[in-house]
Amino acid sequence: MRVLSSQSPDFANQLAALLAFDSVTDASVVQAVDDIVAQVRRDGDAAVLALTQQFDRHPATCMAQLQLSADALKQAFDGLDAKVKDALTLAAARIFDFHQRQVQHSWTYQDALGNTLGQQVTALDSVGIYVPGGLASYPSSVLMNAIPAKVAGVRRIVMVVPAPDGKLNPLVLAAAHVAGVDTVFTIGGAQAVAALAYGTASIARVDKITGPGNKYVAAAKRAVFGQVGIDMIAGPSEVLVYAEGVPTDRADWLAMDLLSQAEHDTVAQAIFVTTSQTLLDAVQREIERALATLPKADIARTATDNRGALILVRDRAEAVQVINQVAPEHLELSIDDPEAMATAIRHAGAIFMGRYTPEAIGDYCAGANHVLPTSGTARFSSPLGVYDFQKKSSIIHCTHDGAQLLARTADLLAQHENLMAHALSARYRVDKQ
Amino acid sequence: MRVLSSQSPDFANQLAALLAFDSVTDASVVQAVDDIVAQVRRDGDAAVLALTQQFDRHPATCMAQLQLSADALKQAFDGLDAKVKDALTLAAARIFDFHQRQVQHSWTYQDALGNTLGQQVTALDSVGIYVPGGLASYPSSVLMNAIPAKVAGVRRIVMVVPAPDGKLNPLVLAAAHVAGVDTVFTIGGAQAVAALAYGTASIARVDKITGPGNKYVAAAKRAVFGQVGIDMIAGPSEVLVYAEGVPTDRADWLAMDLLSQAEHDTVAQAIFVTTSQTLLDAVQREIERALATLPKADIARTATDNRGALILVRDRAEAVQVINQVAPEHLELSIDDPEAMATAIRHAGAIFMGRYTPEAIGDYCAGANHVLPTSGTARFSSPLGVYDFQKKSSIIHCTHDGAQLLARTADLLAQHENLMAHALSARYRVDKQ
Repeated sequence: MRVLSSQSPDFANQLAALLAFDSVTDASVVQAVDDIVAQVRRDGDAAVLALTQQFDRHPATCMAQLQLSADALKQAFDGLDAKVKDALTLAAARIFDFHQRQVQHSWTYQDALGNTLGQQVTALDSVGIYVPGGLASYPSSVLMNAIPAKVAGVRRIVMVVPAPDGKLNPLVLAAAHVAGVDTVFTIGGAQAVAALAYGTASIARVDKITGPGNKYVAAAKRAVFGQVGIDMIAGPSEVLVYAEGVPTDRADWLAMDLLSQAEHDTVAQAIFVTTSQTLLDAVQREIERALATLPKADIARTATDNRGALILVRDRAEAVQVINQVAPEHLELSIDDPEAMATAIRHAGAIFMGRYTPEAIGDYCAGANHVLPTSGTARFSSPLGVYDFQKKSSIIHCTHDGAQLLARTADLLAQHENLMAHALSARYRVDKQ
Repeated sequence: MRVLSSQSPDFANQLAALLAFDSVTDASVVQAVDDIVAQVRRDGDAAVLALTQQFDRHPATCMAQLQLSADALKQAFDGLDAKVKDALTLAAARIFDFHQRQVQHSWTYQDALGNTLGQQVTALDSVGIYVPGGLASYPSSVLMNAIPAKVAGVRRIVMVVPAPDGKLNPLVLAAAHVAGVDTVFTIGGAQAVAALAYGTASIARVDKITGPGNKYVAAAKRAVFGQVGIDMIAGPSEVLVYAEGVPTDRADWLAMDLLSQAEHDTVAQAIFVTTSQTLLDAVQREIERALATLPKADIARTATDNRGALILVRDRAEAVQVINQVAPEHLELSIDDPEAMATAIRHAGAIFMGRYTPEAIGDYCAGANHVLPTSGTARFSSPLGVYDFQKKSSIIHCTHDGAQLLARTADLLAQHENLMAHALSARYRVDKQ
């Protein structure tokens, strides 16, 4: 794992190079996805069924066999081991609790002229949650995507999850039950995204699609953006751990925190920042030691070799500068007094504070969302939240008296924009002198 | 202008056809924009200058000549006619007032285990506002884009506005002064968007780009999305006016409200909905009469002929159904008691209530934003607001005691997702028994 020092004269360039990641979308993927979207728009259910048979080798012979009832979800939950049931229920309850605090409410006020202005907040009518199939089929993602929508008051939450060879992860279905998903279709890929965006005879179109997926799913979400809303298209995931004052015999904690990011993906990024050369060396040793035993060591080693870094900085102020430049998805402040440092952080998806808050707790059950802005997009975007499933309508209600000054003002400004119909429409509201 | 009736057996299809609008992006536009973005990324200022000379026939010979000082903006304001100055100042003050009510604040809470959770809200560091040049150079757009960013606390607001042949609208510069824009570059097109997204020697990169533009600007915003944040890419604009109980001698008000949308663009959409055949006929006559005299009658006639409609419905409940299906950018409820009806509206960018609230007042000076979701996207998106210039970081701070249950839960769930580093990272925080 490369080691950088903020004292190096070339540090700024080295850091910029470390963070550079140009995600290139393969033109052949875009073309394949465009074709699938067109096919689903044209042939509806027939296309969805055929593509699911083809890509997922699914044995279904009609659409009804690709839909799961609420009963099937409940059965999956009832069939779980009691401990897993408790863990899933606890996680869901905490996610509900956190997200309830994000609910936005309508408001109005009266201006000095007597006019009423405000904002009416409503939930989206319907949302589609994409859940990957196979190995990356994570029940935690179901909770993190569906619960904010449920809390927002979305009336219809549809989940799609591919079932390669007809096989499904029962924990994913159980999570859908716990989160309050209304309907599940066992379809995936660009065909599932297209069906959710445009609708078919069996699948009513939704207003927004969220959730992770492979490059075909990402390209499909990009293609239907505008027809429906989408969440961010996630790039590689990253963690930045800052530590000081940690005894070297706990360097294994920090090493494992970094590796829990690196085990996700060969392009995941794990960055360690510290003021202590001793701690830096110890963390490096512990990473090597852990890589000897971890089941996903191959993935994690590729990630740490190619994109990881251990960075020595002079002091906290320098650490804050590095952190704000990285704008990490996950930021861990493994220090005794993280509050003051946290308020200096301008860009981070989530801040894990203190010695006892590894990212893994946030991934599953702290309550905050684990869908976070990746690849530096925390500069301008936010964790997935209830606000992504609510929307606003402005409210403007002028009285006869209150409209007089405003209509004269609008009339004048509209004339200066050469928009005469605007000017006249405002002028009609002005009393004739 | 076509007339539809909800009583027609084919009404659902007719309404769907009226609303259908597939915005096709010309492949040659996408290619040209990709080339320009690549050129600006490679050659920086030199590319921006050369493209500005080429496309805008701008006489500048160096980048410094493409930058305006705060003094130049103030001079533009000082040079305005007193009445226009007052109008601009009033509009800005009202927009500031409305948007201040949208500011989101950080929050935290303690859970029953003693852990602290919450959300830290910060402003974006920097924002680029795109303002079109030439005829569509609207000072009101400067206010509507820049003021929410200013209220959010954005530290650096950069405006770009092309100056064809070196010419600028002084009212646009005055609006930039009033709104608190920090810097103006007189550049436009895809080259301006690329410079804002990637930065050049003269133009520091920004975190988000908002504002309207032509098809090249829209394609450029789509191309840089992910590198920076963008606002919605606006489609054709529309208004839906619902009226009942309006005396026919005021049908001219409603006609002008519809035409104030239609005069914007040949693909703008103006829809009138009413329960009264008499009023419908009167509005139709008044539209014809107004079209005989309006300066932009050609544009407005094309818009009303191709995309306009007068719709007769049986009652308010039916009107609400139609409105929610249209999800109009602008909705005018020209009725005496609009409050109850407004709460039944699920999708609208802005709701203009009562007889004295034409869209034109909202466009300029009511205070609410005039950047609204178009083409049915009010189903899932909101007016531009302060929330578009703020972002959130989740806060999670577990104590030693508070982490015990959560770490055990995360450990178990991570094992079921085959993520062993996650499991171990959590398990390290559990006290050894």
